[in-house]
Amino acid sequence: MQSFNPPRRILMGPGPSDVSPRVLAALARPTIGHLDPDFQALMEDIKAGLARLMNAQGYACIPLPAPGTAGMEAAIMNLLEPGDRAVIAVNGVFATRMADMAARAGASVTLVEHEWGKPVDPAKVEAALAEGPAKVLAFVHAETSTGVRSDAAALCALARKAGALSIVDCVTSLGGIPVDAAAWDADVIYSGTQKCLSAPPGLAPIALSPRAQAAIAARKEKPRNWLFDFGLLMSYWGGEGGRSYHHTAPINALYGLHEALVALFEEGQQAVFVRHQRAHEALAAGLEAVGLAFLVAPADRLPQLNTVRVPEGVDEAAVRAHVLKHWDLEIGAGLGPLKGQVWRIGLMGASATPWHVRLCLTALCGALAAQGHAVSTEAALKAADKALA
Amino acid sequence: MQSFNPPRRILMGPGPSDVSPRVLAALARPTIGHLDPDFQALMEDIKAGLARLMNAQGYACIPLPAPGTAGMEAAIMNLLEPGDRAVIAVNGVFATRMADMAARAGASVTLVEHEWGKPVDPAKVEAALAEGPAKVLAFVHAETSTGVRSDAAALCALARKAGALSIVDCVTSLGGIPVDAAAWDADVIYSGTQKCLSAPPGLAPIALSPRAQAAIAARKEKPRNWLFDFGLLMSYWGGEGGRSYHHTAPINALYGLHEALVALFEEGQQAVFVRHQRAHEALAAGLEAVGLAFLVAPADRLPQLNTVRVPEGVDEAAVRAHVLKHWDLEIGAGLGPLKGQVWRIGLMGASATPWHVRLCLTALCGALAAQGHAVSTEAALKAADKALA
Repeated sequence: MQSFNPPRRILMGPGPSDVSPRVLAALARPTIGHLDPDFQALMEDIKAGLARLMNAQGYACIPLPAPGTAGMEAAIMNLLEPGDRAVIAVNGVFATRMADMAARAGASVTLVEHEWGKPVDPAKVEAALAEGPAKVLAFVHAETSTGVRSDAAALCALARKAGALSIVDCVTSLGGIPVDAAAWDADVIYSGTQKCLSAPPGLAPIALSPRAQAAIAARKEKPRNWLFDFGLLMSYWGGEGGRSYHHTAPINALYGLHEALVALFEEGQQAVFVRHQRAHEALAAGLEAVGLAFLVAPADRLPQLNTVRVPEGVDEAAVRAHVLKHWDLEIGAGLGPLKGQVWRIGLMGASATPWHVRLCLTALCGALAAQGHAVSTEAALKAADKALA
Repeated sequence: MQSFNPPRRILMGPGPSDVSPRVLAALARPTIGHLDPDFQALMEDIKAGLARLMNAQGYACIPLPAPGTAGMEAAIMNLLEPGDRAVIAVNGVFATRMADMAARAGASVTLVEHEWGKPVDPAKVEAALAEGPAKVLAFVHAETSTGVRSDAAALCALARKAGALSIVDCVTSLGGIPVDAAAWDADVIYSGTQKCLSAPPGLAPIALSPRAQAAIAARKEKPRNWLFDFGLLMSYWGGEGGRSYHHTAPINALYGLHEALVALFEEGQQAVFVRHQRAHEALAAGLEAVGLAFLVAPADRLPQLNTVRVPEGVDEAAVRAHVLKHWDLEIGAGLGPLKGQVWRIGLMGASATPWHVRLCLTALCGALAAQGHAVSTEAALKAADKALA
């Protein structure tokens, strides 16, 4: 067994994204105790940073000590108990997971199914909510499996109107496009660190509204899991009246998240969103210049996750292998019904730069040419640069 | 919001322990994708390292993507379902958690209570197992709240005899004293990274025997949590027949665990155990030379977690504050019924050295002197050095 030295990689898949040197350096700072007064100050700083990032003042905002899916599990398991009904809008792989978890929580589930690649349809959701009382409406803001953005404001408003609590999966949206708890009047928002925040995977920021907290306090049974039990978590992260021991926080991972937040606020949230949008427009221009098409209609596209159709006759796995071999470039494959049909190209966080766009276009054109699908790298780069001008 | 620079700390509490520079450096290596072929090779290396460390060949050995308690939750939630009975031996705070989790899993729980500071009594456990069929016997090998070691081999044998599966909490034992799945014939063993492995907190190594895996495969219901569902986890970590996407592994944290394992095997497991034992003997000699007493009888003590009684008239919190202020030294407080009555002094992993023993004795003697309890630092150090000679 020998020390592991990772190869060079340019991360343009669906996550993780490239982690900046300053965040990597933060990870390596000396570990201190999780009950240390200085660490408690760091925890408060992270809570405040997350509330600012999600515009969630008055919400309970903490990073869960596990990858993004832990946010989903915490949301579902804390809000739902046996006898509850959940309406779950499905337009990709992640809402399917929500339904699985809701069933494990003992809830009954109404699925509102959509074609993959389309946003959630508010009219269909409204109809499902009207069928009977629902405790929860859950949906995905930014579907990582398809690259689609849904209208979180409209969907949260439907939940409010129906007296349901909203759960919004923002794993891929947070830090790439606006996530606005207050404007949406959302109840639970969660995310991951390895997408547009460009920290390593391993933490799940989550925000719970006062309504969500009241619903948890009014539960008849304890949540079915312990590590993500909101009441126990807040006795550790709450900060009021002293902290009770719950788990041992992942100290160094939290150094990384903190530094990623510092970097994001230094750049400015609006500037970050503009950077993602510009990178997306440049990539789209380059891809379209060589005849590659998007799965998703322009109005519904996520700038940070670009789902590109594999042209007929192209071996998609060979393209991914080619760009990895020749350019150390990682792009993503399709998931579920989209397997073999699309590539997923991430422009997330530190990977959302003109440099990444140019490298990706160059690598993709080279890989297509290697399969006899001659395309012009110059045309792709020229179109991208024009969009960036 | 500004970058966080942690203060210097010497970590001699109940965990985290000091993390070595080589492990910190590993954390900061560039993030690669969790589906990268090189990362898959790292995963296989970690699985093999954990199997070696726990002497668990033929077991499923993986690191869960969350702190040590995740190991407990995964063990309880995967093995127990409604209708099952669990016998749980309680001799400190951590088995109490097991009971809470088992109830959330829908199981009925028989507690076998012990005085805190005593090991689990096999005779009492045998009697509880004889009361009726039990699916699980759970206990803590190394109780972090008391510093007590229980006889894992004897307790696992009782479980086998009764037809129950054994769950052994090795959070504080792994890497400090022998943990031997094969010799114990144990079914589930789990641990954390921030104790004697001296990696940062955030991961929970776990090992499941073929019997445990068969019991999980024969469940009537899905486990009540999703992230720690063993079947789903193994579709990601299993390595046979291709990997299915489950969560996104905490890449950089796994770099750290891997490097900690490399360092441990370089030193040699036996040498590591001897180093912990020698440090403990030196600390004990020093403490006893100045009249400080242990909570736990010598035969039951964990070398890596020393529970020291607070002398009458001494303000224990002021002592901890004093050593933190003067020596940047963290030691632990008592938990639960031991709150205010003991200090918990860790000699774990990279913190189990003669240097740490000398620093801790010097700091403690100074703190006691500051409260008017004059003790001789020279006497303490002399006794420690004699033990080390």
